[in-house]
Amino acid sequence: MLVSELGEFGLIELLARELGLSYPAASESLKRAGLLVDLGDDALVTRHAEGSLILTTDTMVEGVHFLPGRVAWEDVGWKSLASNLSDIAAMGGEPHVALVTLILSAEAEADDVLALYRGMRECAETHGVLIAGGDVVRGPAFAVTVSLSGWAFVGAGGEAKALVRGAARLGDVVAVTGTLGDSAAGLRLIQDQAPADSDAARRLIRAHTRPVPRLEAGRAAVAAGIECGMDVSDGLVQDLGHIARASGVGIRLDAARVPLSQDLTAVFPAEAIGLALTGGEDYELILVGPMARMESLLGRPDLKLSLIGEVVHYDQPRVAVVDESGAEMPVGRAGWDHLRPDR
Amino acid sequence: MLVSELGEFGLIELLARELGLSYPAASESLKRAGLLVDLGDDALVTRHAEGSLILTTDTMVEGVHFLPGRVAWEDVGWKSLASNLSDIAAMGGEPHVALVTLILSAEAEADDVLALYRGMRECAETHGVLIAGGDVVRGPAFAVTVSLSGWAFVGAGGEAKALVRGAARLGDVVAVTGTLGDSAAGLRLIQDQAPADSDAARRLIRAHTRPVPRLEAGRAAVAAGIECGMDVSDGLVQDLGHIARASGVGIRLDAARVPLSQDLTAVFPAEAIGLALTGGEDYELILVGPMARMESLLGRPDLKLSLIGEVVHYDQPRVAVVDESGAEMPVGRAGWDHLRPDR
Repeated sequence: MLVSELGEFGLIELLARELGLSYPAASESLKRAGLLVDLGDDALVTRHAEGSLILTTDTMVEGVHFLPGRVAWEDVGWKSLASNLSDIAAMGGEPHVALVTLILSAEAEADDVLALYRGMRECAETHGVLIAGGDVVRGPAFAVTVSLSGWAFVGAGGEAKALVRGAARLGDVVAVTGTLGDSAAGLRLIQDQAPADSDAARRLIRAHTRPVPRLEAGRAAVAAGIECGMDVSDGLVQDLGHIARASGVGIRLDAARVPLSQDLTAVFPAEAIGLALTGGEDYELILVGPMARMESLLGRPDLKLSLIGEVVHYDQPRVAVVDESGAEMPVGRAGWDHLRPDR
Repeated sequence: MLVSELGEFGLIELLARELGLSYPAASESLKRAGLLVDLGDDALVTRHAEGSLILTTDTMVEGVHFLPGRVAWEDVGWKSLASNLSDIAAMGGEPHVALVTLILSAEAEADDVLALYRGMRECAETHGVLIAGGDVVRGPAFAVTVSLSGWAFVGAGGEAKALVRGAARLGDVVAVTGTLGDSAAGLRLIQDQAPADSDAARRLIRAHTRPVPRLEAGRAAVAAGIECGMDVSDGLVQDLGHIARASGVGIRLDAARVPLSQDLTAVFPAEAIGLALTGGEDYELILVGPMARMESLLGRPDLKLSLIGEVVHYDQPRVAVVDESGAEMPVGRAGWDHLRPDR
């Protein structure tokens, strides 16, 4: 059925049901989540929580952030929430409630929108987030915007602590969770419409379509006294560049230490390191801090943390990628710019 | 200059400057607003505030919510924030920080985007809100989504209080701020490209392009113990219908008491009441509560509150519009549905 046949309120009712919520009446699940007003009111109101508020928002546009017909709507839903959760992880925070804005053409299929919501709900339940409203509007092309609130880690003295980009200091070590480049490799496979004929290819595609926000690593990092970090969304080198500029430092990245998955090196042996250095949407966490504080995190196998570089002094804030001999390597395309039409 | 020539980070830097903020470095104005991290980090983090969190989001799409070339970009910017502020007003809350998501085509003019930001900043400064980041992405057509957080009113016992749709009770009176229909009249003038050759026409257009969120009325209402309210965004009759259904009550609306501006009756003498009953985007506040509590608000001339009806018992939750004899009037088009392509 077309969304224009359902109308705004008909669609909202279906979507709420997809989330396991009743609309407009309040439900027990809303109350358990600390919501003070019914779904479908002008805004959401949540119980006062300990800690400082974190807010973030992220958008996916059809044809720009995902290819219609080549990615399942469930995956678009999962990823639209996961990318926001990754921003909360990148602050070391705890996610709380999300608002979802859909821009839909009148010709959109209600089944597709419901599939999107199924994926979003799966992600929300996996990570303990409540989707509590938003906005549905008409437009020329599909876009989904998620706004997510969360709460910052509270230190022993009651002060809020967050991982920021501007807190890298000379002598700090640079670490990253998981493996890099898998998402970019998965995107390449989707774009090339290559048959996913191996488990490795399927896992690479899944790294692109179902990224996992590193909430536990972010929380563990702030708890360990790490003050600098961000998630890898534009590409490792470009994102380290954000940290270098925000902190006014140089960062030496050891290419040989960048963690690569066996899947990546098996499917793209020649391009693996390039994909890992510049491919976007890994949603792994970069953590920067003194070795003394990083050590306890490196000792936790569940965080899958690898040391990849150091904070150093250069003439100006920048990132140098060095090979095993210490020589600087040229790095091509620096990462993902959301407005330039080159990708 | 085209936004594609500037690139994402060039544009963000310009936009931050337009807001009087530096990017990516922290500024004193951010710290004064209670922000704990620099603009340009993964998410915003704000100081813990008293009261419960309110979150809302609202979107404007070019060609759907405003007509390109017929409305100034400054006005689009003002309204995109004002409509969100109105949702906070409709909860009786205090606005705090906003995130802005722009969907831009590569052919968008940077000057237009800056003009949009100027209008948004004007609205933010008028109402004491901080715009503290967001997202800029590429897409086929322009859209702006604002997510706004705020804090709920806190009662004497420390409990959060908010105006909700489901709290109308039999015997309550129904009141509304300001005058209704002016915005719909202004839209009609813009659509007809009628020359704005009178002060009245210009004021009607301004009611559409520069709506004023009724934050003070919302706050005063919760402080006076009113528990039910919402803003008029889809049209008076349709929005009263939301309250009737959420509360499970009937609402009798006295057409003769619906406040009309002299401008509206001068420019659209025959259609004034129709525009007031079903025209959208007034952003006035509907308040519903016992007369004993409403009286103190009716005595405040600055709130411009008019009594327009009563909560009554009908066979089912619905709104009846009655004329001076008490006879029910037929009401045409019920209001604004964001997905049906009939407007």
